[in-house]
Amino acid sequence: MKDFLFGAAYYEEYAQEDRLERDLQLMREAGMNTVRIAESTWSVEEPRCGEFDFSHVVRVIEAAGRYGINVIVGTPTYAIPKWLADLDPAILGEAPFGPRQNMDITNPTYRFYAERIIRELVSRTAAYPNVIGFQIDNETKHYGVHNERIVQGFRDWLKARFGTVEAVNDAYTLYHWSSSVSSFDELPDPIGTVNGGYACAFEEYRRELAAAFLRWQADIVSEYKREDQFITHNFDYAWKSFVGPNQQGGQSEGLQPDLNDYEAANAVTLAGTDIYCPPCDALTGWEIAFGGDLMRPLKKAPYLVLESQSQAFTGWLPYAGQLRLMALAHLASGACGVMYWPWASIHGGIESYWKGILSHDGEPGETYAEIRQIGMELKRLAPVMTNVPKKNPIALIVSPEALHAMRWFPTGQGLSYNDVVDAFHRALYELNLECDILYDREADWSGYQLLIFPELYGTSDEMIRRVREYVEQGGSIFASFRSFFADENLLIRHDRQPHGLTDVFGMHYSRFTKNAEHVWMELLEPDTAEAIAHYDDPHWQAYASFTHHRFGAGQAWYLGCTVSDEDLKAHLLRAAAASGIPHPAVGRPMILRRRGGLRFLMNFSDDTQTLPCPQGGTDMLTGAVYAPGQSLTLPPWGAAVLREETDMEISRRER
Amino acid sequence: MKDFLFGAAYYEEYAQEDRLERDLQLMREAGMNTVRIAESTWSVEEPRCGEFDFSHVVRVIEAAGRYGINVIVGTPTYAIPKWLADLDPAILGEAPFGPRQNMDITNPTYRFYAERIIRELVSRTAAYPNVIGFQIDNETKHYGVHNERIVQGFRDWLKARFGTVEAVNDAYTLYHWSSSVSSFDELPDPIGTVNGGYACAFEEYRRELAAAFLRWQADIVSEYKREDQFITHNFDYAWKSFVGPNQQGGQSEGLQPDLNDYEAANAVTLAGTDIYCPPCDALTGWEIAFGGDLMRPLKKAPYLVLESQSQAFTGWLPYAGQLRLMALAHLASGACGVMYWPWASIHGGIESYWKGILSHDGEPGETYAEIRQIGMELKRLAPVMTNVPKKNPIALIVSPEALHAMRWFPTGQGLSYNDVVDAFHRALYELNLECDILYDREADWSGYQLLIFPELYGTSDEMIRRVREYVEQGGSIFASFRSFFADENLLIRHDRQPHGLTDVFGMHYSRFTKNAEHVWMELLEPDTAEAIAHYDDPHWQAYASFTHHRFGAGQAWYLGCTVSDEDLKAHLLRAAAASGIPHPAVGRPMILRRRGGLRFLMNFSDDTQTLPCPQGGTDMLTGAVYAPGQSLTLPPWGAAVLREETDMEISRRER
Amino acid sequence: MKDFLFGAAYYEEYAQEDRLERDLQLMREAGMNTVRIAESTWSVEEPRCGEFDFSHVVRVIEAAGRYGINVIVGTPTYAIPKWLADLDPAILGEAPFGPRQNMDITNPTYRFYAERIIRELVSRTAAYPNVIGFQIDNETKHYGVHNERIVQGFRDWLKARFGTVEAVNDAYTLYHWSSSVSSFDELPDPIGTVNGGYACAFEEYRRELAAAFLRWQADIVSEYKREDQFITHNFDYAWKSFVGPNQQGGQSEGLQPDLNDYEAANAVTLAGTDIYCPPCDALTGWEIAFGGDLMRPLKKAPYLVLESQSQAFTGWLPYAGQLRLMALAHLASGACGVMYWPWASIHGGIESYWKGILSHDGEPGETYAEIRQIGMELKRLAPVMTNVPKKNPIALIVSPEALHAMRWFPTGQGLSYNDVVDAFHRALYELNLECDILYDREADWSGYQLLIFPELYGTSDEMIRRVREYVEQGGSIFASFRSFFADENLLIRHDRQPHGLTDVFGMHYSRFTKNAEHVWMELLEPDTAEAIAHYDDPHWQAYASFTHHRFGAGQAWYLGCTVSDEDLKAHLLRAAAASGIPHPAVGRPMILRRRGGLRFLMNFSDDTQTLPCPQGGTDMLTGAVYAPGQSLTLPPWGAAVLREETDMEISRRER
Repeated sequence: MKDFLFGAAYYEEYAQEDRLERDLQLMREAGMNTVRIAESTWSVEEPRCGEFDFSHVVRVIEAAGRYGINVIVGTPTYAIPKWLADLDPAILGEAPFGPRQNMDITNPTYRFYAERIIRELVSRTAAYPNVIGFQIDNETKHYGVHNERIVQGFRDWLKARFGTVEAVNDAYTLYHWSSSVSSFDELPDPIGTVNGGYACAFEEYRRELAAAFLRWQADIVSEYKREDQFITHNFDYAWKSFVGPNQQGGQSEGLQPDLNDYEAANAVTLAGTDIYCPPCDALTGWEIAFGGDLMRPLKKAPYLVLESQSQAFTGWLPYAGQLRLMALAHLASGACGVMYWPWASIHGGIESYWKGILSHDGEPGETYAEIRQIGMELKRLAPVMTNVPKKNPIALIVSPEALHAMRWFPTGQGLSYNDVVDAFHRALYELNLECDILYDREADWSGYQLLIFPELYGTSDEMIRRVREYVEQGGSIFASFRSFFADENLLIRHDRQPHGLTDVFGMHYSRFTKNAEHVWMELLEPDTAEAIAHYDDPHWQAYASFTHHRFGAGQAWYLGCTVSDEDLKAHLLRAAAASGIPHPAVGRPMILRRRGGLRFLMNFSDDTQTLPCPQGGTDMLTGAVYAPGQSLTLPPWGAAVLREETDMEISRRER
Repeated sequence: MKDFLFGAAYYEEYAQEDRLERDLQLMREAGMNTVRIAESTWSVEEPRCGEFDFSHVVRVIEAAGRYGINVIVGTPTYAIPKWLADLDPAILGEAPFGPRQNMDITNPTYRFYAERIIRELVSRTAAYPNVIGFQIDNETKHYGVHNERIVQGFRDWLKARFGTVEAVNDAYTLYHWSSSVSSFDELPDPIGTVNGGYACAFEEYRRELAAAFLRWQADIVSEYKREDQFITHNFDYAWKSFVGPNQQGGQSEGLQPDLNDYEAANAVTLAGTDIYCPPCDALTGWEIAFGGDLMRPLKKAPYLVLESQSQAFTGWLPYAGQLRLMALAHLASGACGVMYWPWASIHGGIESYWKGILSHDGEPGETYAEIRQIGMELKRLAPVMTNVPKKNPIALIVSPEALHAMRWFPTGQGLSYNDVVDAFHRALYELNLECDILYDREADWSGYQLLIFPELYGTSDEMIRRVREYVEQGGSIFASFRSFFADENLLIRHDRQPHGLTDVFGMHYSRFTKNAEHVWMELLEPDTAEAIAHYDDPHWQAYASFTHHRFGAGQAWYLGCTVSDEDLKAHLLRAAAASGIPHPAVGRPMILRRRGGLRFLMNFSDDTQTLPCPQGGTDMLTGAVYAPGQSLTLPPWGAAVLREETDMEISRRER
Repeated sequence: MKDFLFGAAYYEEYAQEDRLERDLQLMREAGMNTVRIAESTWSVEEPRCGEFDFSHVVRVIEAAGRYGINVIVGTPTYAIPKWLADLDPAILGEAPFGPRQNMDITNPTYRFYAERIIRELVSRTAAYPNVIGFQIDNETKHYGVHNERIVQGFRDWLKARFGTVEAVNDAYTLYHWSSSVSSFDELPDPIGTVNGGYACAFEEYRRELAAAFLRWQADIVSEYKREDQFITHNFDYAWKSFVGPNQQGGQSEGLQPDLNDYEAANAVTLAGTDIYCPPCDALTGWEIAFGGDLMRPLKKAPYLVLESQSQAFTGWLPYAGQLRLMALAHLASGACGVMYWPWASIHGGIESYWKGILSHDGEPGETYAEIRQIGMELKRLAPVMTNVPKKNPIALIVSPEALHAMRWFPTGQGLSYNDVVDAFHRALYELNLECDILYDREADWSGYQLLIFPELYGTSDEMIRRVREYVEQGGSIFASFRSFFADENLLIRHDRQPHGLTDVFGMHYSRFTKNAEHVWMELLEPDTAEAIAHYDDPHWQAYASFTHHRFGAGQAWYLGCTVSDEDLKAHLLRAAAASGIPHPAVGRPMILRRRGGLRFLMNFSDDTQTLPCPQGGTDMLTGAVYAPGQSLTLPPWGAAVLREETDMEISRRER
């Protein structure tokens, strides 16, 4: 990446008047250098089947070029035109025509016309010098689509995985309630099954379909794109909607259930993402850190924030300074670009109230003014940041398979897998213990000092072996309740728990319950482990709730129950310290993140904060120089980016 | 109207025994003069297709005649017999046969048989002297019915409105998410759209179908009815159900979403309505005032309360005196008749617990006794009231289009359009500031001193022009947040807000948000307006929340945010006072309403209330004479109806 | 029954490894003597249509025999194999293939194959000496299945009941809302009706289908079974689920709505049941008493608890001693056996977290240890208990017809029929006033001193006659609000309430309402009755809420309103005392139940309890002897089973 990408999504197709030159002028004045276009506008680009009209696309690329602005061209395949739905009704999912992302991405008719428009679009735009890359599709998932062809594909997938139908019966114990079958054709439609393992396998199969669809798009785009043009995709997260049907509103929260990002990332050359988080009093920066920590390891490289909010939903109008703080937080997490969605507020349709940098009147207002400030500051920071990678000593191991398993076999009281994962990550974040989030399929654990396993429910024996070996060789692990309980098909292990690791953890358990304090509590019985905590409950006080054990050259902590955020932080701090990871001096609302030689100090609060600054350094934003030990004061929602003194600088100063 | 209509709905068809003579005798003794019959009894009137049996209808009319009781004959078309549903399954809506009002009122088969029974019924009954009018259908709506013929009708309606499909694409910005089309046939089914403007247009189209259905019935009835017989319809309101499916229970609350009463009222010669409101501790009289204020302007004349509750649902048994107070409240609002639903409690079916004047034992009990008291008092009041019209200086402008717009683009936290409209009307009601409620299509604003616009979201440029002209020429307006924000197709305006009226209001805004205090808050920036209030929130305190401006010969208030009921009252009082509307001396629970020369003083509380009576007068109910300045005491749920002294009386007294 | 049955459900089909010998060994060591097998495993027993494999069944029976363990063989018909669903798609209910109990039990294809597997299974197992009985199907209901054939059957049933269609119109007053018809074929599908009486008749018809299905199975089994083998069925209760879809979790609570146990019981020779109740702090023993009191009268004999919980759901892990206390409670209620579900925790499928006696590791843990203790104590108790019947002086009269009536015409605020029935039974239980629960079809009221009628809404004139006669001849009755209000078709009576019994109760009422204190309140007007309580509400204080009357040789209490549990207990105690039923000395948490010559004293609390022991006796569990008047101390969740001294023992002691 030559430059840090700073820009916005731009839809000339939706505009009520011709604003192109004015918009580009405003962007340039704000220091923006990139627009993303064309995704979701198929019906404009091909108003009738086979009749192409890329005039908006070409016009925007050419005009942007004149303003020195780069373009990311998105394939428009995630929202189909009506004529395509009419051609083959099987393309649509459960809902009637209307919402986007309501199609069967494996449908042959859909694939035929999607391929055609991709080829038309990419071939016509790849040669423009200011087209720097392509986004394939957008926030791709399998959309819950389910039909006889997909079910048949699932049967074939099971056959490839298990060989015989008896093995399928065994793997999911379909005998239960009389669901075992004697041929692959007889295998029941997984929609309708009450067998959680079988249902989750279907989810896994459908995630594979979505990843394969992205690889298929990437292969087409690769036929046309230049060497220097990237392929990216807009990975998103679980979406916590807070509005009714037919409205847009929600926030990113936890792992995406319907795409395995790790599997899908091999389709792209640059990881991209969109992150939406509540601002105002609720702004903590956590969602930004979560997204960054998850995206960064995908390509082991900086990632692009393809969509970030500016005004967003009603009630999300950020306080002064918050947009700037959010942009710095993206930078601190390893981003190589920040783009906003959208440039200008849209006047009709479902996204009318998901506001852009400009309000509906198209005038540069307060929000634009803060964007312009960010643009100026980025000019100073970007050159030394854009390509700087980032890696942390702690890794959190996650899995969409565990997420779905916990939906079928829930922990209770509405506590989801993402709630647990988020609680662990949020605790680390608030302690300023930086971590990477790794998919469980990631084989490379080198360099990590502490691996954390929240509710990693179903694991293969190979994973058990890797965990054991990691500890044996000196690593630290911290596992939560319900981890390692079942095999990869969600069949509960029929030996002692935690399966295959009782000697590693030095304890076992066979019973679990809950009480007013704990949503889930395993009655841990230490064998050689130390019981760090026992249960308070008079009925269960004989049992441990948190244990520690040395095994081989490493250490293993096991937390048997849900705990308060405060207790979770104490337990994690203990494990980090014992694993040689330094204790951070301050915590939330002061967030400290490090990237390369820069330290980001961010005040996520409405109050002024003063903190010690032991090493000193120069604030890249203001030029202010802090001597070691000098304290540093940040206004509400303020930030500093300290470049530490080099040895040469130190010696010069000390002379 | 010769007499004030006092009576009940009567269903001999449902009775378990022959009670006709006894019932009529009891009615006459209670002072009743009218029954409404025949609506909803099609299966009895035509038990087999083409086989008519009007014996109940004829028997009741003739017997009623002997007791001097008038009859309103209802067409039975809102509940179809099973044989008709069997003839053409396309008649039924989404639900299977069972509930009433579950049919496609545009279905040709339905229309054919509906027309036949209407002609049979009306031709056989119109000549009876005691048949004073006809009710066409009952609480007519479009019932959410949706099928290919109706969708095709919608496409034709769009073609008639817009001419070209490109204009449709533009009007609703169907380009968004790839929904633009290139021919009218391609226009998507609006059920399924995520485009709020397009969806709301479909709702408007379906309201037109319902209004057209009523005009069609009126035309048929008009072929038979006498000059002196009226045509009425039972207009209802939004229905707030508080029971489960398959039970009857709920209350009237706010504007009816699925019929435009203003449009439908041209089918009738007399506006009719039903109003159901919670009695006991929850009785405030507000629903009665809301209904009356909405019905009165429809024909600019007194209206008929076709259904009012007596015992109604379990838990709605009124306290002693409340039935009488409710009857007086109807009178005070401009009613020319009050009828109860039903006369006697029904013994089976879904309405068994929606009790009538008589309980299931058919005996005249406490409820009947209070009805009889009302009957006696009406004899004194009715002669001077029945045809007295009523008009107020304040008008509240409402629109079912805005109601649906707010469903698609909600204000937040479940606050509906009707919540906002109701809050405004309730505030006026509790202040004893009487108003009329006008549909936005009403072109005649003459005589009003203050127009109030709660959330009038989408307006045509013509409406904007009328508002501007009204203020210019000396009128006062009071607009709430979100008014004038979009055009009539719900496309958000792309200039400064409030669109076309920034000079009238002397302020503008481009951003809005919410906080703990306000569900919706626009950041108002006064240009030439006075900021009457600013936001408390430290992040937004630079912005105004309520502004006042003089423009031309008039004044304009703008309220940018949701506020407490107390603040709303203060703001409305300020605007009313500044508009020359006198400040009422007392407020809720003492409700004062004026009709002609009579002043209604009503105590909507469980406590005795004493209030000053500056002008004095004679209580029509008791004959008591109050000297000016004398105070007047009302028992719990009591009322007085004061006839003010005429000048002659005053001079006589002062002599 | 020779021995008290103590055992568990056993599914070798689901096991991950061969554990049969080990399991049987563990059972024998725990004192178990019975396993129940084969229900729900059709797909294993007949993996392909017509290809039978009973190897698991035979293997378990033969091995069990070697360990002296009896077997109950269950017919596997409540979970169909996929090949059967594929043969005739009409077999399945609304849901797709997956859940059990999702079939049309009247479907001819289903019946053909069900009959074949029953004959195969029973003929092959009946000869084994250790097969002591058969369970037909499992928790049978009609599963809400609804199709054209069933609707036609309903029409035929109505024809048989009423003769003419006019009588049907009259019975349900189908005239309402135009639903009357002129031929049986026209009668509408009851799914979709808004006529509660008609809908409830359909429910009654479908309950008859379920009972007939059980009789059909019993007839087949009877062709093969030995004289000494019993036929049982697993009757269950209303199920209060506390989990999401596709999870298993809930508890027994109140009358089963979808089977009339009284009608179905004629298919079996031994009543069986499953009871699941919340343990830990929520353990009260009430659900066990309710189930026992309902099951016992079905065959006027001890009943078998076919399923009882051991560890059950997460959070239901019982405190130490609770399993034992529950087993004793079953004994105290009249059980002739207690079996657990399941023996060992299952490793996959929907019931994975409904844990058995063994945890997933298959090891004998704490739960097993307590089971073994119970086994030892049962050896002492069972010989003198197993066949001892039990009958109480109070009867609670219940009816599934009333349950459904109250769903259609609800009492309000979510208060269901079962809530009311449960409140009455729970009050008696907590007072230690033991009762029997009788279906209203039970004609034999001899021996009861007090009959209680909670919400017995619809009754025939014959029932009214029986109630009157019962009181006339000296019995006591206690009726709640809403009893006797309608006829057996749910048509509300059109004379004074309570219909036909105003002279028995000495009062009448015609109006009812509710207020903040009472969900339902009838305004009772005593004629010759004594008003024991009036309403507090100032608006209704003239009316009685609870009345007492002497009629003939008997007495009648009527409670017009919902009351607090405390008031209900006071009212019931008063009626019991006046009916000659002695006042128990202690109440909850000390539960006293009597069976034959034994008194069970059970401490349902986490605290030690000391209570007087006036008669003295010998604790069968410990051998401790208590002198009359000596006090007895029970630890938390502890129990004593006192054998009272015989006269001979008393005289010996006193010498």
